[in-house]
Amino acid sequence: MSPEVPAVVPPATDLPHRGCFVSFEGGDGAGKSTQRNLLGAWLTGLGHDVVLTREPGGTPLGQVLRDAVLHGEDLDPRTEALLYATDRAHHVHRLVRPALARGAVVVTDRYLDSSVAYQGAARDLGDGEIRDLSLWATRGLLPDLTVLLDLDPAVGAGRRTAAPDRLERESLEFHTRVREHFLALAAQEPARFLVLDATAAPEELHAAVRTRLRPLLPAPAGRAGHPAAVPEERP
Amino acid sequence: MSPEVPAVVPPATDLPHRGCFVSFEGGDGAGKSTQRNLLGAWLTGLGHDVVLTREPGGTPLGQVLRDAVLHGEDLDPRTEALLYATDRAHHVHRLVRPALARGAVVVTDRYLDSSVAYQGAARDLGDGEIRDLSLWATRGLLPDLTVLLDLDPAVGAGRRTAAPDRLERESLEFHTRVREHFLALAAQEPARFLVLDATAAPEELHAAVRTRLRPLLPAPAGRAGHPAAVPEERP
Repeated sequence: MSPEVPAVVPPATDLPHRGCFVSFEGGDGAGKSTQRNLLGAWLTGLGHDVVLTREPGGTPLGQVLRDAVLHGEDLDPRTEALLYATDRAHHVHRLVRPALARGAVVVTDRYLDSSVAYQGAARDLGDGEIRDLSLWATRGLLPDLTVLLDLDPAVGAGRRTAAPDRLERESLEFHTRVREHFLALAAQEPARFLVLDATAAPEELHAAVRTRLRPLLPAPAGRAGHPAAVPEERP
Repeated sequence: MSPEVPAVVPPATDLPHRGCFVSFEGGDGAGKSTQRNLLGAWLTGLGHDVVLTREPGGTPLGQVLRDAVLHGEDLDPRTEALLYATDRAHHVHRLVRPALARGAVVVTDRYLDSSVAYQGAARDLGDGEIRDLSLWATRGLLPDLTVLLDLDPAVGAGRRTAAPDRLERESLEFHTRVREHFLALAAQEPARFLVLDATAAPEELHAAVRTRLRPLLPAPAGRAGHPAAVPEERP
């Protein structure tokens, strides 16, 4: 009755694209969506075709899956990993890849590094398994730039007046492990990551993102074939 | 910007269990749920703790995922494979494994062979990938017995009076490939599979299943510690 164990999942390969794919990562409250929106406004001003999105929940199916993860039954770690991978596969296939193929700049609030950092911090699955699953799901799509907004979870916790209870202490330990996972991922791929201190002013952070992103950008879609057009003239 | 390709997903290992896990497989209309229910009634009569279930949709989360697969947006093959794997992971973790651990006989209408046969027949993913994904999802849980109710799709189609249109011909070709996949899976694992001609009478099929299953059954739960009890006395 002993069942066979699975062999390997074959490696996936990425497909080339003309656009640019940017992800913001970090703990809750680090300012990811603020930075995503500031970046989107700047890119739009430059004349780019800009798509702002998020995970989980960047598609109608993703909304269903997001509700299942966040508000549904207790899930075991593999079910949770598979739900996030399903959301990611659909998001990439339906929204991200078509946008990149037409030359757009896609900016997402969370991507695969969040899965690795959060599920890795929970210690039920290995970082490698979680990453491999997401790469299989997306046929190997990694961001061109990942901005990690790094924040010490104790900074938020230190603002409370009362002493932390057991659950709050456990939560702090968990979020400290999440932070450590994010920093370790950034250290492994310095060419992809930009790590910023999330306690800095939003405009300062935004400037650092612009500087790092500029050389990675494609030609703005609105100016393709119209090199004389200037972004200021756009509505 | 070329992303890394995933390494291997580590092999999963099964956990031992005291119960017995049976799956029915085959095309639509082959009589899977009829046989599952006949088997359930017989097992209950013998005093077993019996759980009848199905995939997809054997849990509340599974119902949500089933709706997403069957009635939702168009899904690419990897998203579809991940959705089924998510359903299977949750089904096994929440329902199948706990039942097997307490010594129950679990009988499911479809399990991982359906994923391999249908998605393999669609030719978008390799059989090995689909199987590996399900085995990772379930930590390697395979049925103790899989009953394949084999039916020629042309038998059903031959009953129509009008000539088949293009879609019906394509559908017939697809379902013929599904059938071939099921038969190939059975040939690869003869110790796990029982292949039956689904055109036989339901009682005849049921008798063949009973004969094959009997030596695999655990001691009936109702008789544990009561060796003198006889099934005929049970309500």
